[in-house]
Amino acid sequence: MSSAVSPLARPFPDMPPIQGVTVRIARAGYKDWGRCDLTYVELAEGTAVAGVFTRNVCCSTEVELGREQIKSGHARALVVNAGNSNAFTGYRGREAVEAIMNQVADHLGCPPSQVFVSSTGVIGVPLPRDKAVAGVAAALAAAPCGWQEATDTIGTTDTFAKGAMATAKIGETTVTLAAIIKGSGMIAPDMATMLGYIFTDAAVAPDFLQQLLSAASDGTFNCITVDSDTSTSDTVLAFATGAAGNPPIRSFEDPGADAFAAALEDVCRQLAHLVVRDGEGAQKFVSVSVEGAVNDESARRVGLAVANSPLVKTAIAGEDANWGRVVMAVGKAGEPADRDRLSIGFGGIWAARNGTALEDYDEAPVARHLKGQDITIEVDLGLGEGRATVWTCDLTHGYISINADYRS
Amino acid sequence: MSSAVSPLARPFPDMPPIQGVTVRIARAGYKDWGRCDLTYVELAEGTAVAGVFTRNVCCSTEVELGREQIKSGHARALVVNAGNSNAFTGYRGREAVEAIMNQVADHLGCPPSQVFVSSTGVIGVPLPRDKAVAGVAAALAAAPCGWQEATDTIGTTDTFAKGAMATAKIGETTVTLAAIIKGSGMIAPDMATMLGYIFTDAAVAPDFLQQLLSAASDGTFNCITVDSDTSTSDTVLAFATGAAGNPPIRSFEDPGADAFAAALEDVCRQLAHLVVRDGEGAQKFVSVSVEGAVNDESARRVGLAVANSPLVKTAIAGEDANWGRVVMAVGKAGEPADRDRLSIGFGGIWAARNGTALEDYDEAPVARHLKGQDITIEVDLGLGEGRATVWTCDLTHGYISINADYRS
Repeated sequence: MSSAVSPLARPFPDMPPIQGVTVRIARAGYKDWGRCDLTYVELAEGTAVAGVFTRNVCCSTEVELGREQIKSGHARALVVNAGNSNAFTGYRGREAVEAIMNQVADHLGCPPSQVFVSSTGVIGVPLPRDKAVAGVAAALAAAPCGWQEATDTIGTTDTFAKGAMATAKIGETTVTLAAIIKGSGMIAPDMATMLGYIFTDAAVAPDFLQQLLSAASDGTFNCITVDSDTSTSDTVLAFATGAAGNPPIRSFEDPGADAFAAALEDVCRQLAHLVVRDGEGAQKFVSVSVEGAVNDESARRVGLAVANSPLVKTAIAGEDANWGRVVMAVGKAGEPADRDRLSIGFGGIWAARNGTALEDYDEAPVARHLKGQDITIEVDLGLGEGRATVWTCDLTHGYISINADYRS
Repeated sequence: MSSAVSPLARPFPDMPPIQGVTVRIARAGYKDWGRCDLTYVELAEGTAVAGVFTRNVCCSTEVELGREQIKSGHARALVVNAGNSNAFTGYRGREAVEAIMNQVADHLGCPPSQVFVSSTGVIGVPLPRDKAVAGVAAALAAAPCGWQEATDTIGTTDTFAKGAMATAKIGETTVTLAAIIKGSGMIAPDMATMLGYIFTDAAVAPDFLQQLLSAASDGTFNCITVDSDTSTSDTVLAFATGAAGNPPIRSFEDPGADAFAAALEDVCRQLAHLVVRDGEGAQKFVSVSVEGAVNDESARRVGLAVANSPLVKTAIAGEDANWGRVVMAVGKAGEPADRDRLSIGFGGIWAARNGTALEDYDEAPVARHLKGQDITIEVDLGLGEGRATVWTCDLTHGYISINADYRS
């Protein structure tokens, strides 16, 4: 982990163990560092799995395999390598992943396809097979550890450990969701945008778990952006062990399905916000709320155009209520917009309405709002009922420092 | 102009006067500064005009009017206001522009529609009509000035004056093109992306001039990006006075048409490169050459995804041959690409071929290349014959400093 913790950091929550989930960590030594960098999670037999993956066409072997693996719906183990993304490494990278899968499958007596592997870090360097195999062996022999240690181990440029939990009542049974995530740069929408893992003791059918995870991702992971860049490795996996013993949820007809769906979306939103809060160089957490669009998807695209605009993000960094840059970003989104119906505000105060500055606009309360850490930008397109909220951070010198130096 | 001149600056060329074009400047006082900020260009009767404009749907009144005005094909005058873009200012902004048009039209005895107005600067503050009218009056009474003074006057955050010239032989007649441009931020493709003006003494029919300007823009202004942001005011206008006395060029059938088209594209490319060289905070000029795409447009989109990637741009700033970030950017472009056919290079040296790092890749010469000011990134998609080159600059602390502070 980097030394300077994000000013937007949140404390790691007090997350309970999840029945059917055992976590171990080890040091594979993927980089020349003293920390653990390999996480091994063992899952009870019968655990259901669902996943969402990057849409980057230059995705890693791990992502390619993962997309195939989730089709079976079941998982027995997860291995996460930190410090090397293994992306763009050809057959040599693939061999290392297959070695890990076979090693764990032998240990557990399960098909290799039930062993999920993720890797995060530098692109283009094949994951060293020998280090990986030795690391897995060390992890298999290690004592179980807690969520925070696992979260520290999957992190790379993260400045704080990010976790979230929720509970839901299914009939008489209370189920728990515990989730961890890593990611602070190369974050962009249209995919999962990071490595995130959600564990629950609920019994949920794989197909329905996939349906719920995809739906939850749309309004959470796919609505955040740090730098508009889309990683080659991004993955979110959800594992449901069923150890809580609730009657399995198979559709929204089943009791407790709505409660579970809400809890899943809750932890996805918490995780997504935590990633933005650890955005590289972030000093401010920014919510962009768009209403009045022709539909929700159009609202999301307008919101992302605002949230991705370097000029808007630097204005927020400078605590400058420069609503003109928001106008510019709305206009370049390529979505239906009418300059003369457009309204822009900060912190709930309109600066411009219907295409022109408010005559009695008082910038003082807006300036006070912008000095805070949690910033809101409001956009009303005045065209229809479409709405969306997206989240980002400001663009600061810290981002440049981290990314002009980070590597090897 | 800002105090620190871009390290990528080029000296202003020794540009001759263009017959039929007279330039004057004045101080309207749009901002609280001592410099001239209003440029007035008088054009001989019969001058042909063509233009390309921003595609930002929240465009300024000036752009809206300009799009209509070029349909007549003729111009008598150009007024450029610096320090206030007059965008998103509703009817009050429009009144000021119409006042300028009427004032100049009265002076010249021409229709107001032949008076072109551009404004650049802060968005959302109506152009002050009284200052504009007084400024125009002062300019009409001023002595003619040279190209460099005019270029200084249209600039805002520019750190150096940007001009370009070319000549072409049309039959026995040599015609001259002189061009000036301003712009260093809010530069993105898919439109003209700045205020640029091209003046020539050639006789060219308006329709053909428009055809040539649009074609020249595609491979020049529409292939540069500084920060992916698209201004609300961007405009490039070409004026042909006909004073050189060549037989008017009406199509590619006419003698000299090819030579004139080449000269026009030459000045457009020069201007486009100069804008990138004055990119906010730029330390390096970056050419991204894409080949092997399924077609040229796909190549251009891939090139722009690379050129717009904050992670690629910060890597260049850090002189880091991080080709993995180029892979990521190619993959997120949304264009056809095959990871296992993709090759990436810097400075003409391949770092990765066909989806994997070269085993004998020697980073030393690449590292030397990246320490220079003119950087090339090569991408071969290995799919087809499509190719394109786009230009950008690196992303540095200077960009953050300029944009977190700039306003009012």
